[in-house]
Parts: sequence; C-alpha cells; structure tokens
Amino acid sequence: MTLNVYLSGEIHTDWREQIIEGAAGLDVRFSSPVTDHGASDDCGAAILGAETNKYWHDHKGAKINAIRTRKGLADADVVVVRFGEKYKQWNAAFDAGYAAALGKSLIVLSQDDHQHALKEVHAAALAVASEPRQVVEILRYVLTGGLPE
Amino acid sequence: MTLNVYLSGEIHTDWREQIIEGAAGLDVRFSSPVTDHGASDDCGAAILGAETNKYWHDHKGAKINAIRTRKGLADADVVVVRFGEKYKQWNAAFDAGYAAALGKSLIVLSQDDHQHALKEVHAAALAVASEPRQVVEILRYVLTGGLPE
Amino acid sequence: MTLNVYLSGEIHTDWREQIIEGAAGLDVRFSSPVTDHGASDDCGAAILGAETNKYWHDHKGAKINAIRTRKGLADADVVVVRFGEKYKQWNAAFDAGYAAALGKSLIVLSQDDHQHALKEVHAAALAVASEPRQVVEILRYVLTGGLPE
Amino acid sequence: MTLNVYLSGEIHTDWREQIIEGAAGLDVRFSSPVTDHGASDDCGAAILGAETNKYWHDHKGAKINAIRTRKGLADADVVVVRFGEKYKQWNAAFDAGYAAALGKSLIVLSQDDHQHALKEVHAAALAVASEPRQVVEILRYVLTGGLPE
Amino acid sequence: MTLNVYLSGEIHTDWREQIIEGAAGLDVRFSSPVTDHGASDDCGAAILGAETNKYWHDHKGAKINAIRTRKGLADADVVVVRFGEKYKQWNAAFDAGYAAALGKSLIVLSQDDHQHALKEVHAAALAVASEPRQVVEILRYVLTGGLPE
Amino acid sequence: MTLNVYLSGEIHTDWREQIIEGAAGLDVRFSSPVTDHGASDDCGAAILGAETNKYWHDHKGAKINAIRTRKGLADADVVVVRFGEKYKQWNAAFDAGYAAALGKSLIVLSQDDHQHALKEVHAAALAVASEPRQVVEILRYVLTGGLPE
Amino acid sequence: MTLNVYLSGEIHTDWREQIIEGAAGLDVRFSSPVTDHGASDDCGAAILGAETNKYWHDHKGAKINAIRTRKGLADADVVVVRFGEKYKQWNAAFDAGYAAALGKSLIVLSQDDHQHALKEVHAAALAVASEPRQVVEILRYVLTGGLPE
Amino acid sequence: MTLNVYLSGEIHTDWREQIIEGAAGLDVRFSSPVTDHGASDDCGAAILGAETNKYWHDHKGAKINAIRTRKGLADADVVVVRFGEKYKQWNAAFDAGYAAALGKSLIVLSQDDHQHALKEVHAAALAVASEPRQVVEILRYVLTGGLPE
Repeated sequence: MTLNVYLSGEIHTDWREQIIEGAAGLDVRFSSPVTDHGASDDCGAAILGAETNKYWHDHKGAKINAIRTRKGLADADVVVVRFGEKYKQWNAAFDAGYAAALGKSLIVLSQDDHQHALKEVHAAALAVASEPRQVVEILRYVLTGGLPE
Repeated sequence: MTLNVYLSGEIHTDWREQIIEGAAGLDVRFSSPVTDHGASDDCGAAILGAETNKYWHDHKGAKINAIRTRKGLADADVVVVRFGEKYKQWNAAFDAGYAAALGKSLIVLSQDDHQHALKEVHAAALAVASEPRQVVEILRYVLTGGLPE
Repeated sequence: MTLNVYLSGEIHTDWREQIIEGAAGLDVRFSSPVTDHGASDDCGAAILGAETNKYWHDHKGAKINAIRTRKGLADADVVVVRFGEKYKQWNAAFDAGYAAALGKSLIVLSQDDHQHALKEVHAAALAVASEPRQVVEILRYVLTGGLPE
Repeated sequence: MTLNVYLSGEIHTDWREQIIEGAAGLDVRFSSPVTDHGASDDCGAAILGAETNKYWHDHKGAKINAIRTRKGLADADVVVVRFGEKYKQWNAAFDAGYAAALGKSLIVLSQDDHQHALKEVHAAALAVASEPRQVVEILRYVLTGGLPE
Repeated sequence: MTLNVYLSGEIHTDWREQIIEGAAGLDVRFSSPVTDHGASDDCGAAILGAETNKYWHDHKGAKINAIRTRKGLADADVVVVRFGEKYKQWNAAFDAGYAAALGKSLIVLSQDDHQHALKEVHAAALAVASEPRQVVEILRYVLTGGLPE
Repeated sequence: MTLNVYLSGEIHTDWREQIIEGAAGLDVRFSSPVTDHGASDDCGAAILGAETNKYWHDHKGAKINAIRTRKGLADADVVVVRFGEKYKQWNAAFDAGYAAALGKSLIVLSQDDHQHALKEVHAAALAVASEPRQVVEILRYVLTGGLPE
Repeated sequence: MTLNVYLSGEIHTDWREQIIEGAAGLDVRFSSPVTDHGASDDCGAAILGAETNKYWHDHKGAKINAIRTRKGLADADVVVVRFGEKYKQWNAAFDAGYAAALGKSLIVLSQDDHQHALKEVHAAALAVASEPRQVVEILRYVLTGGLPE
Repeated sequence: MTLNVYLSGEIHTDWREQIIEGAAGLDVRFSSPVTDHGASDDCGAAILGAETNKYWHDHKGAKINAIRTRKGLADADVVVVRFGEKYKQWNAAFDAGYAAALGKSLIVLSQDDHQHALKEVHAAALAVASEPRQVVEILRYVLTGGLPE
C-alpha cells in the first residue's frame, strides 16, 4: 500500500521537511504546493504578463497555483493541512474544505490556541495533531500498524 | 428558474438580512447556518451532554452544525461566502473550498484589505463583491437579465 | 429547508414513534424500512414463491426490502441508525456504512454498553445520542436553531 | 488483470493468512486493517494523547484506523468481509455497507448459524462463502477461469 | 414516499396497463418508452428527414427514442424490464445493464423458459417476477408494507 | 414527465421564441442564457465595477453569466444548442461539450453549410435539426409519442 | 497511451483471438470474461456448493462471473461487444448498456441481419463493425493515427 | 508528480511540437488527437465502409476520433486548448467545455483578436496564454516551482 499525501498550508517553517524526513522508509509519496513565497505570488505575472491592478496580478498567480493544488488534492489519499502562527491562512482552510468534499482523509496540524477557531475544520478531520512528529507516527501506524515506542 | 442560495460566513453583521431584503420578489430560496453565536457554540453539549474538555465541547457542537451546513451546501446552486473584519473565519474559507469542490457557483463577499490573503478563494469564485447590494444585483441579473440602473 | 430523515435499525421498540411525534411541527419527512417483522421476513416468498431452502427464502425477501431501503437512504439528508439491546443488528451497521459512503449525515442512537463495539460506526457519525429525545432536539436545532430549554 | 482485494472483519483467527497463502501465485494485491487488537484500540491515544473518557479514547483511535480502512476500500476491486463467531462485529457490517455503496464486488465469509442475521448483507454480496478456501477458489476462477479439481 | 418506476421492454402485450391499473392508489409515478411500434421506428425520419439507408433510418430514430429512455431511467427509483416471448429484445437487456450501472433497483419480469439465458440479468436484479401482478405486489409491499392476501 | 430544456447558443434571431411557442401545451420547462447582448457583455462591470482592460471587463461578465449557464445546464434533461450564421459561437460549442460531459441529451440546431465544421459536435448529439420546428417535433414526440402530421 | 479494451459477448467463435493477434504490437491491454462455457455455467455450484434448483445454480454462477465482468468493464477505456449468430445473447446487450451508462467508448461487432434488432445498442456505440479486422483497424487508428492500406 | 496533458485544438501549425520540445526533461505525459487532417476526416469510411452522404461519412469518422479524444480528456490533469487563426474550431471549444465539466485544469492558447469571442471559454480556464512558450513555462512552474529567467 502506497499512501499519496498532500501537505497543504503554512510555508514559512520546516514542518514539511520534518514530516518527509521522519517518514523516510515508509511507502509514502508526498506532494505539496510551491513553497517559494515570491515565486508563488508572482508566477502569473511572470509567465502571462504584468498587471497594473494588484487584484488581477494575484488572480493570475492564484489560478496557476491552482493547477498544482488541484492535482495534489485529487491524487491524494491523505491531506495534511497545517495552520501556523501567522497570517490569515484562508487558503489552508479552503484546501481543507475542498479535501473534505472530495472525501479525502484529512489530518489537521494546528496549535492549541487555534482550537476554537478551527472547530469546524477539526470536525471534518480524522486526526488533529500539534506536532509534525505525530503526523509521521500516524502515517507509520497506518502503513505498518506500528505504534511509537 | 429558482435559485437556491446558501449564505455562509460572518454572523456578526446584518449582511444576510440586507441580501434577503434586497432580493425580495426574486425567485430565490435562501438558507444559512445557525447565526446565534451562543447556540451554535453550545448545541453539542446542550443536547448530547456536557464535556469537561473544551476541545470535545466544541467538537460535538461543530458536528451538529455540520448537519445543517452540509445540507445547505449540497442543495445550493450558489454559495455566497462573507469574510468580515474580525476573527479567523476559517469556517468561511472551509465552506468556500467545500463548495468549490462540489462545483457550486461561488460568490465571495469581502473587503479590499483582505484581497491578497483571499486570492486563492477569489480564484475559485465566479464573482467577488464588496457590498451586499452587489450580491443582490448579481442574483437579480442571473434571474431576470436586468442590470442595476 | 425540509430535512429528509431515514430511520434505520431496531424494529422492536417505539423509538421511531417517539421521534416522529417529538418532531411534530418541524419540516421533516421521515421514512423507514418495513417494521412488521413477519412481513419483512416473508415478503420474498409471499410474492415471488416459496423456497425450500431457508437461505433463498431470506435472500428473496432481503432483496425486496432493499428496494425500500435504498430509496430511503438515497433520498435522505440525515440517516438515524438505532442499535437496540437485542439481536446481531448487522443490517443496522450495514445501513450506517452505506449511508457514510454516500456522504449522508449520520446520527447513531445507541447505548453506553455498546460504546466500544460501535466505535467505528460512531467515528463516522455527526452525532451519537442515547435517547430518541436527543434526536428530536438535534432535528429541531438543525432546522430552527433552537436549543432544548 | 490484477485484483485488489481488501480483507475486512474478524481479526482473531488466521483466515487472512489462509487466503493469502492459498492465493500465492495469483495476481492479487491484498490489503487489510491493522490486525493487532491492542494497537488498533490504542493508536489514537498513543499518538495524539491520552483521554480520560473512554468514548474519546476510542473515537481518536477509530478515526486513525479509518484512514487505512478508507484507503483499502477505495482501492479495492473486491472486498471480502469475514464474520466470525464472537463479538458484535458491527465494524465488519459497516465496511460491507460502505463497500456496497461504492459498488465494490462483495464476498461475505460467514457461518451457517449467522445466515438469517446476515441476510441483508448477503443480499448485497456477489458470493457468500463459509470457508477461506472458497474465497481462494473464487479469486482463482475470476483471474484464471480455473475451477477447483 | 413516491416511487418513480420506469417500465422498459416488450411493447406488444398489455403488461404495462396491468401494472399501472393494479397499482392504482399507490404513490407511484410510472414512465415508459413510446410503445407505438411504428412511431418508434420512424420518428427519426419523420422529423429529421428520410434516409435511403435503413441503418441510418433506424439510427436517427433510436437516438430520438434515447432522449426519452435516458430521462426515464435517470429519474427512476425502480426499473422494471419485461422480456416477452418474441424478438431479440436486446434493447430491454441494454436498459437493464444501463439501470444496473446507475445503481437503480431492477425488477425483471420474465418467463421460465428464458431463465438460463437471462441469468446475468437476473443476477443484477432485486426481484425476478413472472407475472405483472407480482410487480404490483412488490410495489405495494415496498410502499405500504402490506403483503398479498 | 416534465422535460427541462436549456436553449443555448445564438441570441440574434427568434429561434427560442419559435420553439417555446411551438411547444405550448407540452410539459416542458425552458431556460436560457440572458439574451440581451449588451447586458450580457457589461454585467460584470455594471455590477462589480469598471475595468480599464477589456480582457478583465469581459472576464467579470462571463463569470457572472456562467452562474446562470451552469444552473441551466445542470438542471436540464435536454440541451438544445443553436449555431447561427454569424460570429465564432465558441460559447455555443463550449456549452455543447459541457452538456455532453454531464451526459445530457444534446440536440444541435445548425445549418447545412456548417455540417463539416460541426461534425464532432454532431457526433455527440442525439439529434441534429435544421429548423426550430423540428426541435418542437422532437419534444412533442418525446413527451407524447406523437409524430408530425 | 495504453488502451484498456474489454471484449464482451459471444464465446463460441475465435473473434477474440483474431482481434488480439491482429493487435499484436499495439499498446493495448485486453480483458474478457471466462470463455469456457462449462466453467462459466458451473462455477457457482462448483465452488460454493450444489443447488437443486436450476435458478439458484445459475444465480450463484452468474454472480461470481459478475466479479470479473465488473472489473473488466470498470477498468476499460473501450468495450467491444460481439453479437454472434446464435443464442439470446442478453448478457452481451446487458454489458453494452452497463458500459454506456459508465461512459465507456463502445464498439459493437455485429452482423447485417441483426441491424434492426440492435438499433438501440448501435445508437449508443462509437463504432459498429462487422468484422474483427475492423476492430483491430480502429484500435490501430486510435493509437497510431494509421489507416488500413 | 507526473502531469498528464492533453493538447486539443488546431492541427495546422507546430504548436504541439513547440510545447513538447520545450517541456523536454519535465515529468509530463502528452497526448493529443490524430493530427493528420486527411486521416482524421476519412477514418470512419476507410475502416467501416464508404457512405454516399457526406453527413454520415463525417459522422462515422468523428465518432472514431471521439474514442481517442475521450480517452485523452479522461486521463488528463491539464487540458491545453489551442485556437488558431483559421476555421470555425468548434471541436476545440467543445473539448474545452467537456474538460471544464470534468473539472480538468484548462489552459487556453489563443490570440488577442479572439479575446472577446472566447470570453466564456477563458472564464473557465486557469490560464490564458498567447504563446506555446508560456504553456511550457506554466508546466515547468507547476512541476518544479521555477519561473522563467
């Protein structure tokens, strides 16, 4: 059994690397959005031409990024959504809703002080973790049946 | 043609009332979440029994609210998602993602200063409005072909 | 908003009547399996001809009952599954799994001493109640936003 | 033609091993739930933290197990559900209902004295066997056209 | 509960009338193909213009008839397929396969001497009847729980 | 049986009126896009604000029109797509493709000199007519079995 | 591009071999039902136990064969259905309807004297051939763009 | 991550070759229709027999081509639709609509002077490019996160 896992959400800490390294040796294929913040913001204008209006600048970029996001979500068995400390992170919650509607297994990685604000997202999840290590442990258990020592 | 419209998001201003009143006379059936904040937070514990742990208190409530939200989203032709000035509003973004994955027509009602943070949500929408009046005008145009004077 | 509610499971107590009476005045359409145990067991043979082998006797009946069950589940927004005190009740758990796979909102009505044995079914439910009264309260809250006094 | 076969249900006898060994040489990929009873019961608490309330202890575990179960069921061409002699086994019936709703080919492995109680589950199955050997013979016939000698 | 029932197959005897009359008073909405053999054969040419080649004459007609057949099958909860004594009746078997793939509840109305030739169609059905009266009894039982006296 | 019919394509002749008048008395519910060319082009800017760039002016309008088009196509049993004499009419062909992918019954209303250019669209249609009168005759036949005299 | 092709229908002539040999070198994966008539008829009884009633003997066999047929149809891009000279062949027409409802590309291989009786099946097909050689030529053209010389 | 990309539309310039060469080294699997105009027009008659009526000549060919087109669209993650300078190109717009209804990521490759006529197609696209080079840059960005220098 190979698990396809999409890692959505926060791009400013190394949580993806922690999970990918922790899962070394497990039969997992990870995918994720482009995590270079600048490239992600500017890809539309850089490829399809500049816009004077910031809204359309962002719009063109967000749609190109959606090609990757949709592919990652569509192919995933498990979607991990990370809510970090900063920013609005509405794209993370949007991905969580999208994944839930597709019937994907959802794991949320969040912090205690966001508990109340995330209750609807948590209610759709199969696991709510606070540490990347726990996500690795879930993937290991799901694939091998082994629990953390 | 009857349009089923689900009004998701912010519950602290009267934007729903503005839209519903503005759309008087149009062939629209509106639905929305429970907008009594206290009832919405406590419904799980009030009906199914108290929890000492806040997480599970919220969890029980969020799941009962999901019965109504899922029904509203599943039956909708158009989903309007309002992002207000306060709070994290991750449930609004979650509903937007859920609606997008179901192929619903999405209208976002948001403010200019949220433009960049909402770019992924906007990219999935068929209209981005800043005033409830505009949502009414869209519904009127879609149903009657009439533009605002 | 009209809720279509299918009442699955135990047929030997009056829990359906309690819910239907309790929900009087709410915009709910209830449906349920045939609850006459004898008719339910014998419908296949009575209509399509007797079988000497008990397996095929049961088989013909179960398939005719499936016409009603499938219709009820397919049309439902909410599926309530009741696990009573007696019998194996595998058909109740089968309906719960069927409803979950269709993405229906699932409410389980069960007893404390079945908690561990039902944990997988509970994990797929949006509410786990122990009294028919609580199911009524959930339906009332979902439809009107009102909590029990 | 490769058959993906998910082996659901009873975890206290060696029926899975009998089938997997019997099917050696056939083009079958088997998957199954975690069959270590203790790990399966405790995975939620062990990974995500202890709960004082047994209901939530079980709930967290059942949801993590659901990640594996959903993946196995979603990928399967054939779902074999085994009902053993002991326990309520509602999770087995739940999986059978889930598989039926997804349109999977369902094989039930059960005992004569459960015949009446399982009639609704049997009615949804393409085969009802009483011995693991028969499941192997079905897989061999489906893949090669060969009948038992 | 209203049952939508599509009556497919043989058009040379009065089996549809028998069922419709027998079901008087039950909450059933019946639909069926055009049963005027001549109109059914010639509708394509009569409306869209004559063809010199018999194949295209039939093709144009069959496609117009498909508009009605698809609508009837798509809206149906129950599809009854009647195999009569004469003709190849491949369109009846085609409708049965189409209905099965859509997950409709299938009732086959056939004769004993066709039993072996119809075994694959029977295997997909929830009931196999030999008399129109039995179809009425099934509909009555499904809707009211009442068995024939 | 009520047929829902969406009338897509050309907006510069009275073909819709001819069909709707011709179908008077038949159980048909028609829907169609906004056929006021000016309103259709400008709705985005008129409601959501002017754009200096013609591309975005058109984009905003086309998306609002998509709310109506999607609703019409999603609810339709039959989609009639009219290709007229003028313009590129790519939106008509787009609607035809969209309808085909949804499995809708497609009727094309086109002219002989477009036959070769439309061959892929015709290949997906259940009828290809050249006169609005023929579309009415198809609807009458589908609903009543009656052929033109 | 690899084409998955399911070869349904007649089992008494060598049409499958002709197609498979003709398609040597093309990127095609063929699958088909069990074509050993005796094994196909008796598989149910041979594996799951004898039945005294011929109906149930056939029923058990047809259901086991359905495991293979469903898998073949579900995985196919193209379904070829062969109608031969003899027998009722309702299973072939059933498979054609099933394939059509799943949106599979359907090729019918039939004879001129069956043209009228098969018109509904032909109307759902993307090609109607009379020789196995033509099916090979279609597969070659679809995969390589090459026409027969 | 492997991207499956279907290249639909114009067959008279080398835009496909430019994209395929430009994407050398990227993890992309391209597919496309048969681009030999003569073979594409005549495949039906060449394989299945000549027709005297041009409509049916085209019809038979268009349906065989649909086998390849459907497969390409169904397997694609991304559908690129090219509108060139000449011809009606309704098949390109049809493919775009078909792809949009399936939820595929749509990239349109078109010219400025077609902007207004393509506004409905553009509104359904995630990117609108004017040069094949830009399509390559999008694919590179989606797969690697790298922007053009």
